[in-house]
Formats: sequence, structure tokens, C-alpha cells
Amino acid sequence: MNTRLLGTFRGGDSGQWQIERASAVIGPPLPAVARLAVDVGERQAPVQNQGLWILRGVTSFERYVQTDEKARLVERQPPLDRPQATRAALIPIKKSAAWWQLPQDERRAIFEDRSGHIARGLEYLPAVARRLYHGYDLGEPFDFLTWFEYVPAAAEAFEELVNALRQTEEWSYVEREIDLRLVRAE
Amino acid sequence: MNTRLLGTFRGGDSGQWQIERASAVIGPPLPAVARLAVDVGERQAPVQNQGLWILRGVTSFERYVQTDEKARLVERQPPLDRPQATRAALIPIKKSAAWWQLPQDERRAIFEDRSGHIARGLEYLPAVARRLYHGYDLGEPFDFLTWFEYVPAAAEAFEELVNALRQTEEWSYVEREIDLRLVRAE
Repeated sequence: MNTRLLGTFRGGDSGQWQIERASAVIGPPLPAVARLAVDVGERQAPVQNQGLWILRGVTSFERYVQTDEKARLVERQPPLDRPQATRAALIPIKKSAAWWQLPQDERRAIFEDRSGHIARGLEYLPAVARRLYHGYDLGEPFDFLTWFEYVPAAAEAFEELVNALRQTEEWSYVEREIDLRLVRAE
Repeated sequence: MNTRLLGTFRGGDSGQWQIERASAVIGPPLPAVARLAVDVGERQAPVQNQGLWILRGVTSFERYVQTDEKARLVERQPPLDRPQATRAALIPIKKSAAWWQLPQDERRAIFEDRSGHIARGLEYLPAVARRLYHGYDLGEPFDFLTWFEYVPAAAEAFEELVNALRQTEEWSYVEREIDLRLVRAE
């Protein structure tokens, strides 16, 4: 059974991840911080240190993945928390009102048939582990917080993946995107 | 632009809707109450009177509706708050973990191709006005709160619609359903 997980990402001066690079890809940046504290659990983590900013999301059901794609994903996707995966990325994204008003078939056509979001991602498995947190129904400032973990050797491939996605039709609906690159603090 | 609306439904001894009938269709009932107070707004309503129970949800993007269906819905669906629509229903539903783990194409096939959820609903427009609130990502006890408003003369037709939906394959995934029928209090 899938357990609903709440992800809380606090930017500040403490936390298990060190900020290596922070870019405002589209729209305004987040305040600059040195560290990221990540809490994942079935209940909201009690927040002792607010940090400079907090982003929240929840794992949820699959919005676009179809039967055949799900089988390939399940077969290839690696778990999170691999000890050798010392690099991570947190990519918060907000899509436009125009995106959210599209009917399901049109969103799926843009997302996969015309932008190849799932197919492109599959090419980078099992190098890159991934978990998607949803913020849209929560009224969060970002609709999606995608968390990635990878080994240092996969950093260039990961760069290639995010750059390719940013050229797609899907990305024309992204109105804010932040890209945080992280190194596990020893 | 669609505005995200929060719906708060409080069962207790006050509120603008009088409970005419409350049925636990599947699973345990809610505590019996005399009235339902409904608050809808862009922000969470300050709750002065907790009542016996509170259910919450948010309006969101369309999970299954496709382009052609959306056009027909927009053309036919009536607004809420019609003065002559003095009857209402609140139907909270929770679906099983098995449902939420299905890929999108399989959920759509069950929901519409095999259960005709949208097509059946269209037959009862414009008699029945409807708004769907989502609770799944919020971690609410019910995944959906559907709110309906209709004129007294449409009560029988509405009964026919909900009974037909309860016979569908989609409903085999419903693990809890409450059906509250309401009359606008003078």
C-alpha cells in the first residue's frame, strides 16, 4: 500500500543537505540559504527551526502515468537514500492557471505525447532516484516539489535531463521554477 | 480564471441547511446532526462553532474530464445558489487504496468508459447544479465531497442518478460513502 508522505523542506542554516547551487530558472528566487533540512513522514514534522523559508508537499496518486509506463518505472526506478547518492536536487515548480484549466486529455498530450516527460525520465533510470510531492491542492506557493538523488558521476546526465525538459512545450506552462542542487553534509 | 475554493461543512445544531435524511451508504455513519453549516471561500473560514463534525475539501483541476466532455459540461451546467434550488445533497466518498494505485488510463477507463460517470451526470443537467471538493491530498477522511443543489421537482431524478452510479464498476472502489439530503432552512 502507498503511504501518503508529507515532505517539509526548510531552507536555513541547518539541515543534512548543503546548498551547492541555487538558481531561479523562471520567476523570482527564494532567499539564499546555506543548508536544506528535509523531513519526510506520515505526519507533519514539528517545526523547531523555521529557517528562512519552508516548502511543503504530499505524495499522491499518479496524474499522467499509464499502465505500460508504470510497469517500466517500477522495473527501473531506484530507491531513495542510497548511501552512494550524495548529490540531490530539489526543483519547485508552479504552473500557470492556463495549464490547470486544460482538460485531462490535453494536459496528458502536452505532458507526454508532445513533451515526452515520462519517456525522457525513463532514460535516466536507474541513475537518478526521484520522488514527487504535490502542493497544488494544499494551496502551497509551488504546485510540485520534485526531489532527486544521484551519484556524483550522474551529475552531468541529470543536467542534460533538466535542460531537455526545459525546452519542451510543457515548460511553456511553467511560471516559476527554482533549481536547488545539494550535497549531503558529512 | 478558476479560483481555488475551500469548502467547510460543519454538522451540528446550526447552519443554513436542515438535514432531511442522512444515510451511511457504505461504511460507518457520521454522528447524527440536525443542521449543516456550509462555508465556501478562498481562505479557511474561522470556525466559531465546531459542531459535531467538520469535513473539508478544495476545488481543483479536472482529473478525468476530456475536451469534448468539458464543452458539454460548460454548456449545460447551471450555477449554484439558484433561489429555487431549495434541496441539496452532500455526498462524501472515500475510495480504496487499490483505486489510488491504478495508473491514470485504467482509472479513466473505469470512471468513464465502463461506468459512464460523466455521461450519466450530463443527462441530469441543467436540473442539478454540482461542485466537487477534493480531500485526498489534504489527508481528509473523505477523498471527495460532492455538493449538489436542485429544485424539489428534481429530487426523484437525482435519486435515479445516484442509484445508477452506485451500480457501476467505479463504485466497487468506494469504501465509504455518506449521503446527506438537505433542505434550505427559511
